[in-house]
Amino acid sequence: MEDNKTQFPQQPPPPPNDVAETNKFWAPQAWAHLQSVRRSSPLIQCITNFVSMDLVANVLLSGGASPAMLHSVQEIPDFTPKTHALCINVGTLVPDWLPAMKMAAQVANECNKPWVLDPVAAGASGFRLKACLDLLKLRPTVVRGNGSEIMALFRGSVDENSKGADSLHESTDAIEAAKSLAQISGSIVAVSGAIDIVTDGHRVVGVKNGVPMLQKITATGCSVTALIAAFVAIDPLRPFEATATALSVFGLAGEIGMDMAKGPASLRMYLIDALHGLDEATILRRVNIGKML
Amino acid sequence: MEDNKTQFPQQPPPPPNDVAETNKFWAPQAWAHLQSVRRSSPLIQCITNFVSMDLVANVLLSGGASPAMLHSVQEIPDFTPKTHALCINVGTLVPDWLPAMKMAAQVANECNKPWVLDPVAAGASGFRLKACLDLLKLRPTVVRGNGSEIMALFRGSVDENSKGADSLHESTDAIEAAKSLAQISGSIVAVSGAIDIVTDGHRVVGVKNGVPMLQKITATGCSVTALIAAFVAIDPLRPFEATATALSVFGLAGEIGMDMAKGPASLRMYLIDALHGLDEATILRRVNIGKML
Amino acid sequence: MEDNKTQFPQQPPPPPNDVAETNKFWAPQAWAHLQSVRRSSPLIQCITNFVSMDLVANVLLSGGASPAMLHSVQEIPDFTPKTHALCINVGTLVPDWLPAMKMAAQVANECNKPWVLDPVAAGASGFRLKACLDLLKLRPTVVRGNGSEIMALFRGSVDENSKGADSLHESTDAIEAAKSLAQISGSIVAVSGAIDIVTDGHRVVGVKNGVPMLQKITATGCSVTALIAAFVAIDPLRPFEATATALSVFGLAGEIGMDMAKGPASLRMYLIDALHGLDEATILRRVNIGKML
Repeated sequence: MEDNKTQFPQQPPPPPNDVAETNKFWAPQAWAHLQSVRRSSPLIQCITNFVSMDLVANVLLSGGASPAMLHSVQEIPDFTPKTHALCINVGTLVPDWLPAMKMAAQVANECNKPWVLDPVAAGASGFRLKACLDLLKLRPTVVRGNGSEIMALFRGSVDENSKGADSLHESTDAIEAAKSLAQISGSIVAVSGAIDIVTDGHRVVGVKNGVPMLQKITATGCSVTALIAAFVAIDPLRPFEATATALSVFGLAGEIGMDMAKGPASLRMYLIDALHGLDEATILRRVNIGKML
Repeated sequence: MEDNKTQFPQQPPPPPNDVAETNKFWAPQAWAHLQSVRRSSPLIQCITNFVSMDLVANVLLSGGASPAMLHSVQEIPDFTPKTHALCINVGTLVPDWLPAMKMAAQVANECNKPWVLDPVAAGASGFRLKACLDLLKLRPTVVRGNGSEIMALFRGSVDENSKGADSLHESTDAIEAAKSLAQISGSIVAVSGAIDIVTDGHRVVGVKNGVPMLQKITATGCSVTALIAAFVAIDPLRPFEATATALSVFGLAGEIGMDMAKGPASLRMYLIDALHGLDEATILRRVNIGKML
Repeated sequence: MEDNKTQFPQQPPPPPNDVAETNKFWAPQAWAHLQSVRRSSPLIQCITNFVSMDLVANVLLSGGASPAMLHSVQEIPDFTPKTHALCINVGTLVPDWLPAMKMAAQVANECNKPWVLDPVAAGASGFRLKACLDLLKLRPTVVRGNGSEIMALFRGSVDENSKGADSLHESTDAIEAAKSLAQISGSIVAVSGAIDIVTDGHRVVGVKNGVPMLQKITATGCSVTALIAAFVAIDPLRPFEATATALSVFGLAGEIGMDMAKGPASLRMYLIDALHGLDEATILRRVNIGKML
């Protein structure tokens, strides 16, 4: 199955270093991506957890995409080929859902559709880690998680490939883990945090938009993963760039929402409103993506 | 099973044309229906998709009804007879849920309780279309969908009844499809859109309340279907009228919400607040239901 | 299995009557509990219904706790021992979910973790009542429901223990039912209503915070049950006190939210914002817990 990914178009060469890692490159790129999502309204299939379904769908709609929350194996062969990208999130995982997740990922691969994995709480149990590693073998275009989740995936991948390497990676930090995981998996890896990290295993950028209170709202991580799927859907040859701009646009919507918010629930509302209303001038002025050293 | 429906009370004759199709008839009717829901707080069982459960329950509560989100076959025989109406929505359908949907529809029929079907994404897959057509054979009191969904159901129904009729209905528009589907199925059919259409197969009215931004909020369609169930629950002999007034009241709540909204998420909030607070004067002035020519 | 509970630490003696039942005791206690939740951010596993997952998670986050919405039997043995409390809610119950609920309760008991039961609609069907009574036998630390639910549990427990006692408890009111249920089950029992009741079978206090409009928002009951789990997590030896303060803090957040709300949806938002922002002065002034006579 993994071989299917060899049919995927190759990534274009990265933009020259002196441009790629400054906002002169990234801010117009973010605006171009958001405009493209709004204009083409890509259809994003989400197989996501119960907690996040409402917010994920609303964030996709406000970003300009069309959510499709279908998860039965009976309709994936009919439906997944019609979508523009797939988002798989293991939040409230039970064994019954895994066949649909794997089938959808395989159909996406066969149809050259990008797909994005959110390995929620990857380290919470052996069952969950195994499920995430199995999905990782289906070569998601992008994996987005928090530091612990990416570390858990990285360690799990290393352990699967070379037993007994625990001592080796104890001291590895999230950036190094993300780079290594990207190299092992062939996926773009994004790590959410105070600064979001995006890497293809070689390049690394930091996305500095967002506000701390986003962590007090459930499913904001799930939602930005879905938004990444929408951005990758409209620029599938450049998932590294699309992942970074999606993270930045979502974080910027959070910043704008925070200006009006009185707490987590009003932030959640104003974030969605802001995402829907984001204009070019604001994006050009406030997108904040830069090189990580 | 379908024969049970013959026990249902007959619809009264339609109101005279010169009154029925003006707001002199519809606006007081809408207020009477909303008042009746608020006073009697009908118990509405919802077997609905995961994405919409929260909004559906909150819209029912704000409209004055009592939501009951139960879907196990183990308790439908005990519980469904105690409800005043049933709402079935196939949004996140998997095969496991179909027996409960069918059983609940059958129990509702046996107990002469109205039930409403929301055939979400009916055309998305063969599995889904088949499930919707099977539910349609259990004779829902009302079917509400968007144009594509109603067209898919209509075509599916025609194909089941007379093979090879594809060329015939290619050019049929949503109103004609809705009328034909109502005649075939015996259900009131509602088509959501810029103007919502309601038909019993003979009469057709257009509901002109609502705002475009409702389409940027997930599950507003599911929610208005549930509100239709609540309105039909308190006027079960006149599902045509109750469907039209429910659509109008929900759309009007959206219009009022839009006055304060800054985007889709605040619209969602203010819509629910407005539905809860709607008063007679506003309804009499702003309900907008009229004849479709 | 029930014997495990004998390992639990004994409750300390109740505070002296003349202090315990006044706000001189309760208001500082409520602030101490909320502070402790915010500082230690207890991990609360929630096996809850589909309708409430979003609100439950957001209320826990705003209260300062960490929600974990995991419900597969495959990961309960790994994960539940790492949590600080468990919340089980039977809202959208199907038979498939019961083994996970029972296993999680058993693991919680074995690990001396408190757990809280929300017997949603306990009397709605024989299946549901049986499930709730089975869970009750696993000795939840706290049971919280509305009057009908607690009455249904009480009657079901009495019927199980002494057949044919129906006439006896027809006239029993909710407070007496709650006290009896607490004595039979060994759980703290909380009854939500205009005044919330909390009892350990001997002591009874009434919590007078809250606003009527909370009943117009779905899952507020589920959410306060989860908040009780968080409060009990940080004061596991005094579940009676923690239950009362959690109910009061949630109700007070509702009161503050009501000052700004225009309806149920804005109340929901402002309640969460208020819970996040609650300060000591407000709690000391407005917590309203008193003796029930």
